[in-house]
Amino acid sequence: MTGAGALLIVDLAGTAVFALNGALTAIRAARLDIVGVLTLGMMTALGGGIIRDVIIDSLPPATFRDWRYLVVAAAGALVAFVLGRSLDRVGFAVDVLDAVGLSLFAVAGATKALGAGLGPLQAVILGAVTAVGGGTVRDVMIGRVPTVLTSGLYAVPALVGAAITVVGAEVGPGTGAGVWVVTSVGAAACFLIRLVGIRFDLNAPVPPGSPPA
Amino acid sequence: MTGAGALLIVDLAGTAVFALNGALTAIRAARLDIVGVLTLGMMTALGGGIIRDVIIDSLPPATFRDWRYLVVAAAGALVAFVLGRSLDRVGFAVDVLDAVGLSLFAVAGATKALGAGLGPLQAVILGAVTAVGGGTVRDVMIGRVPTVLTSGLYAVPALVGAAITVVGAEVGPGTGAGVWVVTSVGAAACFLIRLVGIRFDLNAPVPPGSPPA
Amino acid sequence: MTGAGALLIVDLAGTAVFALNGALTAIRAARLDIVGVLTLGMMTALGGGIIRDVIIDSLPPATFRDWRYLVVAAAGALVAFVLGRSLDRVGFAVDVLDAVGLSLFAVAGATKALGAGLGPLQAVILGAVTAVGGGTVRDVMIGRVPTVLTSGLYAVPALVGAAITVVGAEVGPGTGAGVWVVTSVGAAACFLIRLVGIRFDLNAPVPPGSPPA
Repeated sequence: MTGAGALLIVDLAGTAVFALNGALTAIRAARLDIVGVLTLGMMTALGGGIIRDVIIDSLPPATFRDWRYLVVAAAGALVAFVLGRSLDRVGFAVDVLDAVGLSLFAVAGATKALGAGLGPLQAVILGAVTAVGGGTVRDVMIGRVPTVLTSGLYAVPALVGAAITVVGAEVGPGTGAGVWVVTSVGAAACFLIRLVGIRFDLNAPVPPGSPPA
Repeated sequence: MTGAGALLIVDLAGTAVFALNGALTAIRAARLDIVGVLTLGMMTALGGGIIRDVIIDSLPPATFRDWRYLVVAAAGALVAFVLGRSLDRVGFAVDVLDAVGLSLFAVAGATKALGAGLGPLQAVILGAVTAVGGGTVRDVMIGRVPTVLTSGLYAVPALVGAAITVVGAEVGPGTGAGVWVVTSVGAAACFLIRLVGIRFDLNAPVPPGSPPA
Repeated sequence: MTGAGALLIVDLAGTAVFALNGALTAIRAARLDIVGVLTLGMMTALGGGIIRDVIIDSLPPATFRDWRYLVVAAAGALVAFVLGRSLDRVGFAVDVLDAVGLSLFAVAGATKALGAGLGPLQAVILGAVTAVGGGTVRDVMIGRVPTVLTSGLYAVPALVGAAITVVGAEVGPGTGAGVWVVTSVGAAACFLIRLVGIRFDLNAPVPPGSPPA
């Protein structure tokens, strides 16, 4: 498989899990009807990629050039709507889906940024922006302070996953197999750090002199 | 009249009614001063079109290329500021203005998306995004969960209006008269569905197993 | 020094003070950890310029083409994180930093807009949008109604500063020295009006018939 094919699969998989996550969030946190659930699911799924494509000047965004993004996002949100109540009991699912989407979008965003000619530092940042973008849109829409601000280990794993991807792409062979390996390592690192953060409710240091929480 | 002329009129009319709506919302919901009223009116009026133009890569957005958009938006907001208290008593006005703007922007957005080369599915979605964009910006700014998430019949009429426009454009003659007819039917359908939704407070189905509201 | 050099310095200085301001806001208002402080600082510092560059079709935004923007924004936020508690006692600092950033971005935004070929009216508006953009992103992220809506003298000084810049550029010589003079006068006017507004808690007129606050 070519690098472009791998990238598309990663991007669509991230879209699907963020659609599930956004739709489940709509069901749990905001108790919306089917239109609200689909809308929030699609915003969560597509928000990060649209921001990324605007910044790298790849317009119209992939979302509006390739119909599969819209269909995958709508299908993911619809599945969540139908299964919502049963999945709801598995409360951990929302967090895990978010962590999977974060990981896939961090590596896909960094890879696309490099392909668009951005420097390594910028590609790492843009990978993280892509990863946290959809969830940030989701949280702002339902009036929550975004996870990227409140959870120390949300932006950090995205930055790590994107950094591994960028380093791998700079020093690696850039062939199909190499892309898969680098993408997998970067995504796995992001996913594991995020899960550790959720499991142990870890946060980064607070400002010097802050009162205890 | 040419199709382009028709499109401009529809776009400016939508801008004017959303400016009135956003400014009245600022007066009613947030009790802002004249700068706040003008700002929220202009954001509501121009937000959807700017998002649309970014996505179809028509930059700078029409808002910043054609001075009439800025002037119409500012004038609409100013009228609302001056008349605000009297119009306020006609509480229905805010909802009707929003429905008119939704209808005009759904057809204008879908038409511009087709003109920019987007596929039919994408044009329908982008028409709806254009229609709900300004109101969503307005709601986020004043800390409300956006209407597009909470009201089942807000995105749906926009999608219907945009779909009629796209189907009409694909099968229709595309001449000036044809454009007017298709635009009018699409906008009227959107407006009527939205009004029915407001009048009967209709919502779409909730997730299976949800507790009654 | 050339006009382009002056513009870059003004833009980076505005980035630095908005990073400080956003990070201090994160410490004071939202009590975030280091990642949240850095993220909010960088969003505040870079938000206005990214919006400006999208609208004038200068993509990728300067933020992602010139590494100094990312480094200056991160450094500013980091300084605020380290010094946060001591600066905190100087509560006025947050407002003054915001006023400085507002002034620098109003003139930088208007200058860039003219350079991109926008008309004078549009350049004034876009200068103000650049100036208020970062603070608006900051406020939306932490769930506050943005200052641009609630404080009468926030958009107004930005518009005045941008207007002086545009008039100066249209009638002035456009040489390095001339650019410095016009930029300085515009920024100083914006800064002074904003400070007067903060000091005396001035607001613009409220709608006719409004009850007293």
